[in-house]
Order: sequence, then C-alpha cells, then structure tokens
Amino acid sequence: MPVDVRFFAPLGSLSLGELAKQTGSGLFGDEDLKLTGISSAANGRRGDLGFLDGDGKSAIEINPDISALVVNDANVARIPDGIPYIISKFPRHVHGTAAVKLFRPRHLDWHGESAISPDATVDESVKIAPGAAIAPGAVIGAGTFIGANAVIGPGVQIGRNCVIGPAATVFCALIGDHVRLLSGARIGEAGFGVMPGPSGAEDAPHYGRVVLQDHVTIGANSCVDRGAFDDTILGERTRIDNLCQIAHNVVLGRSVLMAAFGGISGSVQIGDGTMLGGRVGIADHVKVGEGVSLAASSGLFRNIEDGETWGGTPAKPLRQWMREIAWLQKNANPKKKG
Amino acid sequence: MPVDVRFFAPLGSLSLGELAKQTGSGLFGDEDLKLTGISSAANGRRGDLGFLDGDGKSAIEINPDISALVVNDANVARIPDGIPYIISKFPRHVHGTAAVKLFRPRHLDWHGESAISPDATVDESVKIAPGAAIAPGAVIGAGTFIGANAVIGPGVQIGRNCVIGPAATVFCALIGDHVRLLSGARIGEAGFGVMPGPSGAEDAPHYGRVVLQDHVTIGANSCVDRGAFDDTILGERTRIDNLCQIAHNVVLGRSVLMAAFGGISGSVQIGDGTMLGGRVGIADHVKVGEGVSLAASSGLFRNIEDGETWGGTPAKPLRQWMREIAWLQKNANPKKKG
Amino acid sequence: MPVDVRFFAPLGSLSLGELAKQTGSGLFGDEDLKLTGISSAANGRRGDLGFLDGDGKSAIEINPDISALVVNDANVARIPDGIPYIISKFPRHVHGTAAVKLFRPRHLDWHGESAISPDATVDESVKIAPGAAIAPGAVIGAGTFIGANAVIGPGVQIGRNCVIGPAATVFCALIGDHVRLLSGARIGEAGFGVMPGPSGAEDAPHYGRVVLQDHVTIGANSCVDRGAFDDTILGERTRIDNLCQIAHNVVLGRSVLMAAFGGISGSVQIGDGTMLGGRVGIADHVKVGEGVSLAASSGLFRNIEDGETWGGTPAKPLRQWMREIAWLQKNANPKKKG
Repeated sequence: MPVDVRFFAPLGSLSLGELAKQTGSGLFGDEDLKLTGISSAANGRRGDLGFLDGDGKSAIEINPDISALVVNDANVARIPDGIPYIISKFPRHVHGTAAVKLFRPRHLDWHGESAISPDATVDESVKIAPGAAIAPGAVIGAGTFIGANAVIGPGVQIGRNCVIGPAATVFCALIGDHVRLLSGARIGEAGFGVMPGPSGAEDAPHYGRVVLQDHVTIGANSCVDRGAFDDTILGERTRIDNLCQIAHNVVLGRSVLMAAFGGISGSVQIGDGTMLGGRVGIADHVKVGEGVSLAASSGLFRNIEDGETWGGTPAKPLRQWMREIAWLQKNANPKKKG
Repeated sequence: MPVDVRFFAPLGSLSLGELAKQTGSGLFGDEDLKLTGISSAANGRRGDLGFLDGDGKSAIEINPDISALVVNDANVARIPDGIPYIISKFPRHVHGTAAVKLFRPRHLDWHGESAISPDATVDESVKIAPGAAIAPGAVIGAGTFIGANAVIGPGVQIGRNCVIGPAATVFCALIGDHVRLLSGARIGEAGFGVMPGPSGAEDAPHYGRVVLQDHVTIGANSCVDRGAFDDTILGERTRIDNLCQIAHNVVLGRSVLMAAFGGISGSVQIGDGTMLGGRVGIADHVKVGEGVSLAASSGLFRNIEDGETWGGTPAKPLRQWMREIAWLQKNANPKKKG
Repeated sequence: MPVDVRFFAPLGSLSLGELAKQTGSGLFGDEDLKLTGISSAANGRRGDLGFLDGDGKSAIEINPDISALVVNDANVARIPDGIPYIISKFPRHVHGTAAVKLFRPRHLDWHGESAISPDATVDESVKIAPGAAIAPGAVIGAGTFIGANAVIGPGVQIGRNCVIGPAATVFCALIGDHVRLLSGARIGEAGFGVMPGPSGAEDAPHYGRVVLQDHVTIGANSCVDRGAFDDTILGERTRIDNLCQIAHNVVLGRSVLMAAFGGISGSVQIGDGTMLGGRVGIADHVKVGEGVSLAASSGLFRNIEDGETWGGTPAKPLRQWMREIAWLQKNANPKKKG
C-alpha cells in the first residue's frame, strides 16, 4: 500500500547506494536504484523499499513488484531472485532511515495561529465550536459537528453528519458518514513499536492510516492507532466504549461491540458482530471469527472460530473456564456441613 | 425524572399517533395524546413516553403517572390498564425517534468563535486559563479555577472553589463546591449503549446528567458518563484515580475510593466508604454495600453486603480466594524437599 | 528534596507555633522555629517540615538536617533527639496545612488570554500549532514541536527536538531531548493520595515533579503523575504505550517498555530493560529488577529479582503459573477418550 501523500509529504527519491552508505550496510544489487516509497514487504510496489527482520522462520509474504528490501542475516535466503537488497543488523532502522528521507509527516509542519486553515475544505453547513483547530488539506462533509478544542489534522477526510467530540484529536484518518467520536478520542496516533537500532531502542515509524467506516462510534478517551504501513480499519456500525485501545493494523469487522478498557494488540483481526465484554485483552496477530463472545476480563492469546463464547485468562471456551472455577472452588475449600 | 432543559432544548410536542405512523408501529390508545417528554418507565411523569424491552421476565417498575409506553410483544401484558402504548420490535428505537423530535442536545448547537460565551454566568473571581471554552448557560461559582483548554458545556453548573483541570471537558453536569477534575477528565459524555434498530445497531440516546457532590475528585483522563434518562451520581468526598470509567446511571455513595483503571458498568450502586483497588471491574446492575473492600484486579459479578472484603475474578470473599490460590499452588507444583 | 520554585511559588515562612495553634495540635520544641519548606521525612533539609504517620512499625528514614516533624502518637518514639515536633491525629493534614501556607502551585495562578506567555522562553526554531498554550516560565528548546491545543504549564522545561503531541498537557516537569508525548498524554498531574483529616478524607498535596529523560516516549492518553515531594522519574529510552498510568514517586530505569494499560502504583521501582506486557499492574512500593519480563495481564504484589520472567495474578514465576494452569485444566475437566 503506497504511503498516503495527504498525510505524509513526499520529499523526493533516494538511491539504494546512498542508503547503504549512510547506514553503513552491505548492498547487493543496483546501487543506482531509485527508491521513492516505503512499505511492508507484503504490500510493496515499484519504487518501494520493504524489510524483513526476525528469526527467518515466521511466515512472510513478499510482493514481487517491490523494488528493494532490507534484511538481516537470518532472512537473506528468503529474498526472491532479482530483488536488490541491503543487509543490516537493524533492518527496521535502515528502513526507517529511508522513510525519514522520503516522507515527512505533514502534522509536524502544521503550525501558526490560524486555527481553521484556509486550505481546509469545510462544508458551509459544518458547525465548529470554539477552539477547534482544522489543518490544511482536511475535508469535512455536510452536517458534521466539530466540538470545542477538537483537533483535525492535515489531510484528514471526514464525511457527512459526523460528530467529532470536544477535545478529540484526529490524524492520518479517513472517516465515513455518521461517525461519532466522543470527547478525548485519539484517532491516528503512531502505534507502539520499538525496534533495535545502533544507538539503542528506537520508536518504529508509522506511515499508515486509520479508516473508520460509516456509523462507527469511538468512546471517550479511546485510542485507535494508525497502521505501521497499511491501515487500521473499523467496519460499519462498530462501537467502541470509553478508554479502549486499538493498536496499529487491527482490522475489526462490522457491528463489533467493545466495552470499556478493551485492548486489541497489533494486527489482530475480528469478524463481524463479535462482542467483547469489559477489559478484554487480545494478543497481537490473533484472529477472532464472526459472532464470537468474549466474557469480561478475558485475556485471549489464541485464534477463535466463528460463534464461540470464551472467557478467562488465558481465555478458553466459557464452559470449560466455568468448570475449572467451580472445580477449584469445590476442592480447595472445606466442605460445608449439611 | 424530567429531561433537564438546561442541557437539552425542548422542541415542542408530538402526538402518539404521529410517532406510531412515522415508525410504522401499532398504536393502542389515544392517537391525539401529546407527548412532551421522554423518560425511563420507572420515572416517567405526565407527558412522558417510556419504554419496556427485553424478555418480559426481568423486574420492572412503571410510574403510574407516565403518559404512554413503547413495548415489544414480550412486554405487552405488563402494561398497566389505561396507559396508551405503541408496539414495536424495536422499543428503544421508537423511543429514541420520539426523543430526537422532542429534544435537541444544546451542545450540538454550540458553535462560533466566542470561547467564553457572553451568555455564561461566571463569577468575577473565577480565573480562566488560556484557551478554555465556556458555553452559553454555564454557571461558574466564586473562587473556581478553569484550566487551559478546558471545555465547559452549555448549561453546566459548577460551584465554588472548584479546580477544573486543563483539557478537561464537562457536559450535562451539576458540580458542587471544592470539586477537582484533573487534566483530561471527561464528565457527561453519552454512555455506551447499543440498541437494535430497523437498519442495524444504533447508539442508544442519553438524556440524563452527571451529579458530582462537594469535594469529589476525578483523576486525569477518567470518564464519568451521564445517565440514560436519570442521573449518574458521585457522593461527597468520593475520590476517583486516573483512567477510571464510570458508566451511565451509576450511583456512588460518599467517600468511595477508586484506584486507577477502575471500571464501573451501568446502573451499579456502591455504598459509602467502599474502597476499590486498582483495576477493579464491576458488572452492570451489581449492588455493593458500605465499607466494602475490593482487592486490586477483582472482577465482580455479584452483589456484596456491607463490610465485606473480596478479591479475584470472578470475585469472592478474600479468604476464600486466597485459600484457592494457595491450594492450587500446593497441589499443582512438585513438592520441595525439606 | 526542596520544593521546586519554578512550579510552586514560595509564600514566605511560618512558625512552628503558628502551625500548631492553627491546627489545634500539641507542640514539642521551639515555637519560634521558622518553617520555609516541606518535604518527606527522608529528604528534608534545614527549614523543612516533614511528617510520619502510619502504625509506627514500617521502615522509615529521617534526614537529620530536617527542621521539624509532624507525627501521630504511634510515631513519637521514633523522632530523633533534638528535632522539634507537632503531634496530631492527622499528621498529613497538618503538613498539608503548612504546605498551603508556604507554597502556591503556579498553575493555579496562570490565567488570562495570552496563550503563549511573553514570559516563556521559546527557542525561535520551535514550531507551535494552533491553540497551544505555553505558560510563564516555561522553557522550550530548539527544534521542538508543540501540537495543536497542547498545554505547557508554568516553569516546565522541555529540551531539544521533542514532539509534544496535540492536546497533551505538561505540568511540573523537566523533559530532556528527543522526548515524544503522544496526543492527550498527561504529565505532572497530582497523584492519587487520600489522607484522613478532621472533616473527612482529603486529597494529599503533591509538590514533587516529573523527570522524563532523553528519548522517552509516552503514549496517547497515558498519565505520569508528579511526585508527592520527590520526583517521578523515567530513564532514557523508556517507552510507554497508550493508556498507561504511572503514579507518584515511581522510578523507571532506562529502556523500560510498557504495553497498553500498564498501571504502576506509587513508589514502585523498575530496573533497566524490563518489559511489561499489556495490562500489567504493580502494587505500590514493589521493586522490580533489571531485565525482568512480566506477561500480559500480570498483577504483581511482590519484589522480583533481575532477569526473572513472571505472569499471573498474583504474579509468580511464569513456569509455575503455566504449570498451575495446565494442572487445573487437566484435573477439572472430563478426560478425553483416546
């Protein structure tokens, strides 16, 4: 998926040779190759640089159109023939170095005193409460309400009849119609990803987006992070309660319900109509089917098929969890006399 | 409890017949009956429309003064004689349709550039930091401080000597004296309630209020939702830590203490002097007595009597919980040799 | 540690006799002794008043340079010879009474319409987005970016090349270089501490600071409370995810990683390189070593040595926790037939 230039300004191109030189890395292939984009390995296109790190054993996908890769030793053997590559101990650091040279987040250049940018496109029917700030390139559709002290970042697209609550902030996001963000919701912040670098741990860069489809509601002070390179997506009529966390690259289906303190780690996928009780946590990359129910306080570390009801930490089928609770209670406590 | 017109502007009246027609529902009773208000079934008065949904088996209360009801098939038999009613598959949807025709949240009409409304009543001793927004109809008492970029919504009443922290937002709320809201606290947002409708899940409307009595403190980024139709109430000297969630219609007594990540579901009642450790969750409609202690990380699904100490998930008396933990540890692990 | 006058304005001095008289407490020692500061008992210096409460049995430390103490009956015998003292049923209340007479938080006096104070020192290279408020005495270094509607409180020091996210608030804090605060982060609010007083529970005063060292990242809507009297400190390259809570007086080492919903209670210490999975909670005063791993959803109530891996609630070594889970599952459920 190409970097969305509404959110990240392209700075030009970079040759593979320059990148190798600047990061002190080994280069295998055409040093004059022009890099113009960055991406995940799976979704790279012509001009894009992707990366492979880890132990070389987990499943990977590489788009054959990608122009170049940065890899560590463990992944060299997995590079398809004909793709130029750089070898580094810190593939994500090299990839991030390229990213910074190729793109600049527009929100880091939004400054000055003009709270509502003349370069935003705001329908004349939009009502804007005091103190709201709307950045250049933002587009806001008819009938939408923007609450007091809300912040709409550069390039953000908001549809019709939405309510953006007071003090909410929205960056790097495409928002449909009839979407409601309650007070203090945080849409499109960078995800939490720490990568090793030559000077120690670094924050992994995030160049993806958030997509909120029609009729989505996000509760007060909840957070939906933008994708690392791809998108974080919430399907139509999905409803998120207050104080929830939805990490980068998560894909939620339609009409998913999530009660307060729900925490969904990176790249989790959840099917349509699934319901999560309060304080449910899901580990990264887990897949949850459609119509699943997760009891309050569940901690889920495994995939779940459609229609299941689970609970507990680590989560298991609800009946089994309840059986274990009852058995422990019966055996651990002194018997009551009849 | 009547809808508070300081927060929701009355739009006029609606006949029961019109409502039935617009929502394609069956009408039993006087089609010319004028509806002027909405309420829960339990607290409706003359002119109010209430609703009954669910399976028709749970306990309900109906105020005999209520003017009309919307019910589903399962609840028809429970309507007291003489009360006109509408039958629908989606009682809350019909009720919500009436609500939208009868009232409009004033906060959705607050717009323009005047950060401190000339129609607010602010004592001359009030100090207001830069960027704060105060809406029409708000009343702020002597000696109160309003932090930078805080937002005080239409009609909000704040007493004397309060501190409203920076970036906090307050809507649909009555606030006593000496109340402290720390940075980013969210008071009076709509609760999380999803109801079925003819086009799929819809957000249930919330027309209630938040009442914070004297000397209440709400921590940073904590949320206290307004009631659905009645009030969410926090008693005197109740203290809430950071990042807590208090849902609609919750009633907390006096001097309740709640540590970080406490999550109280809708309609929970908690007695005076009860203490909740960090990350305690309580399921909806649970009643907790006075002077109760709940250990950190408890997940409570049952009522508790006065003075008890409980822990675990699902929560149980602390001694029992600790006995089960010790018994499991002893039996599951290989014995250490003396 | 003396109260930092950049954050709390000194109001003059107070004699020990006046304080005893105003709070109706017994005085033992020089009534003319001039108090000019407040502190913990452990870190008091000349002119400072400290306090001792509790049952008189827990470990305490008293700096011999401290000028006076307030104590309850249970702690009288622990006062070193020659230190004047006040006896009260409510030592923290008396101490707080002195604090209010000696210092005034500057953020409670920051008001007016000037969003960027002429008394702030802002490097000319700093970019400031619309709606940001910067208080008198704040200092902001070269290359730093201040997001829309962010709030920088009186006296706050921010280094170079930092990114202060939109709607973030920062008070009573010293911030290094390359620090990133994501949207809605709350730095330097008062911690959660409730103390008994003659009229009931009162909020304990907090006169400490937050120190964020270089390359620290704080996630969206996360909270780092200032110390009660000493500092809350996060070491270099420590990274905190969204919606985390770090209480007063916590000390985190370097390169600590904390996933979403992490909750660290007051005075916890954590060593370098320790990793906390999502939703980990740690009870107050617990010490965690270097290089420790805590599994997601752990609830920790005990100290942990360097290099350990723990999980569960209450947390125990990971292998033991997993053994108990497996044993319970095997014994509580009906055997599957081969």
